[in-house]
Amino acid sequence: MEIRKLEQMFEVLRNRPKKRLVAAYANDDHTICAVSNAVDHGLIDATLVGDEAVIAKICASENIDMKKFKIVHEPEDVKAAAKACDIINSGEGDILMKGLLPTDKYMRAILNKERGLCPPNVTLAHIAVMENPNYHKLLIASDCAIIPAPDLKQKQTILKYITTTAKALGIATPKVAFIAATEQMSAGMQACVDAAIIAKMVDRGQIKGCIADGPLSLDLAIDAEAVAIKGLKSPVAGDADCLLFPNIESANVFYKCCTKFDHSEIGAMVMGAKVPCVLSSRGDTSKTKLYSIALAAMLA
Amino acid sequence: MEIRKLEQMFEVLRNRPKKRLVAAYANDDHTICAVSNAVDHGLIDATLVGDEAVIAKICASENIDMKKFKIVHEPEDVKAAAKACDIINSGEGDILMKGLLPTDKYMRAILNKERGLCPPNVTLAHIAVMENPNYHKLLIASDCAIIPAPDLKQKQTILKYITTTAKALGIATPKVAFIAATEQMSAGMQACVDAAIIAKMVDRGQIKGCIADGPLSLDLAIDAEAVAIKGLKSPVAGDADCLLFPNIESANVFYKCCTKFDHSEIGAMVMGAKVPCVLSSRGDTSKTKLYSIALAAMLA
Repeated sequence: MEIRKLEQMFEVLRNRPKKRLVAAYANDDHTICAVSNAVDHGLIDATLVGDEAVIAKICASENIDMKKFKIVHEPEDVKAAAKACDIINSGEGDILMKGLLPTDKYMRAILNKERGLCPPNVTLAHIAVMENPNYHKLLIASDCAIIPAPDLKQKQTILKYITTTAKALGIATPKVAFIAATEQMSAGMQACVDAAIIAKMVDRGQIKGCIADGPLSLDLAIDAEAVAIKGLKSPVAGDADCLLFPNIESANVFYKCCTKFDHSEIGAMVMGAKVPCVLSSRGDTSKTKLYSIALAAMLA
Repeated sequence: MEIRKLEQMFEVLRNRPKKRLVAAYANDDHTICAVSNAVDHGLIDATLVGDEAVIAKICASENIDMKKFKIVHEPEDVKAAAKACDIINSGEGDILMKGLLPTDKYMRAILNKERGLCPPNVTLAHIAVMENPNYHKLLIASDCAIIPAPDLKQKQTILKYITTTAKALGIATPKVAFIAATEQMSAGMQACVDAAIIAKMVDRGQIKGCIADGPLSLDLAIDAEAVAIKGLKSPVAGDADCLLFPNIESANVFYKCCTKFDHSEIGAMVMGAKVPCVLSSRGDTSKTKLYSIALAAMLA
């Protein structure tokens, strides 16, 4: 089944064996409520690593039955993150989730050579799935948050991640647009050059599992009318499933336009580690947190 | 009066002496209808440079009274563009507008050393004013279309143009946000570094006429709620009038999100030449064409 609305992930997940989420330093209401909500929706089982007394206190004040979680006591943030990775490395967890610790400490735990979740020289990338009420299906966008200026090799890796994500959402052959400021092949603009190179790799079968085209400006990726006016022939234009952005600023602007102007629903995660890693923040809506956990479970 | 809706420009222009628009190679229905519409709205007087027979034929088929225009016969596109610049250089025109010729030929006419409209080494930039129904006032954005990767000096020039535009729209002291992927001051990201430098120049009074802050992610520039959640203190955040983007891809993605997802009304022009230059395209709506002419008239 192709997922067209993020909420449809719930039905899929309820009919599968539950994946096990491990929350790294679940010492705040934001994390505990999000995980509790996901457990209540039947999406995951959960282990909370953190200060047991603090967790108990938050559960009491939020009217959450603590028995729904497995608790692992570790009162210090960096140690709790390492412990959460240990649990996953020992085969007892399928998804990592950030708790109260800062993002940089969380990422360092994931990348840690001894106890982390990554092979050496891995590329971690942020994958966002947006349900924009002004578009006719989901849009998978990357990288909105981690890699400042992906080079050609990193873009190929991101393409692999977004293709994997699309397939996990039931999109058999996703259409991927490489975004630039124009669809004109301008050899002086790196975004256009890289787009042409990767598009040709896909054409030649060197990269499999997707249909791809670029450079495309955003309107030509997502608006069939704009494509018709330009008279553009492309297997992707006007109907993209996935948007690969040339730099973090353009991707982040897209993400923020979708969330702030269009009130899009979002699920997001970090890919590249042994398991999907959830990276939600206090400012995310409770729906975004829930969808992010569900998305990670779909990929786990 | 501060303009809060693009349509309010009409009232202002009707109470001023009319500016004189010169259309370079007005050999198509798209250009002639847009100019005719602007004349009918009482916004401008107009000279059409192009093939008189073709212009007459289009006017007949579109039911346009040709007498409302001054016609200058020149049947060849590049020559027509040069002639249009001559008219402006002779003091007979205040606004240039692109007709049927390609954008690169139009820009070359503007930049031509002998007959063009620019001093040497000028920076031309694209300035867009968006009326996004999801924002509480106009947003002036740049550069969405011309400069691929503005350097620090070009960003200062763009800042000057957007400040000038804001003032022409009655915004006495515009709030300018320098957009990046994050509000964190990351010294490894050029967008953040340049933002910090220009913001400090504004703080020190080296650049006058605006309030500025950056780096700011788009949400923190335009969403007061996101600002409150972050606890960010900034004279700009959450209430920006102007957005200066770090590269063409992020600016273009913003422009396309506003037009395609949010159905924003837009007025846009090129600044930096002796007069404002209108650069609308066939795909623009008739409202966008009208607002672009009006915007240029406000700045002329």
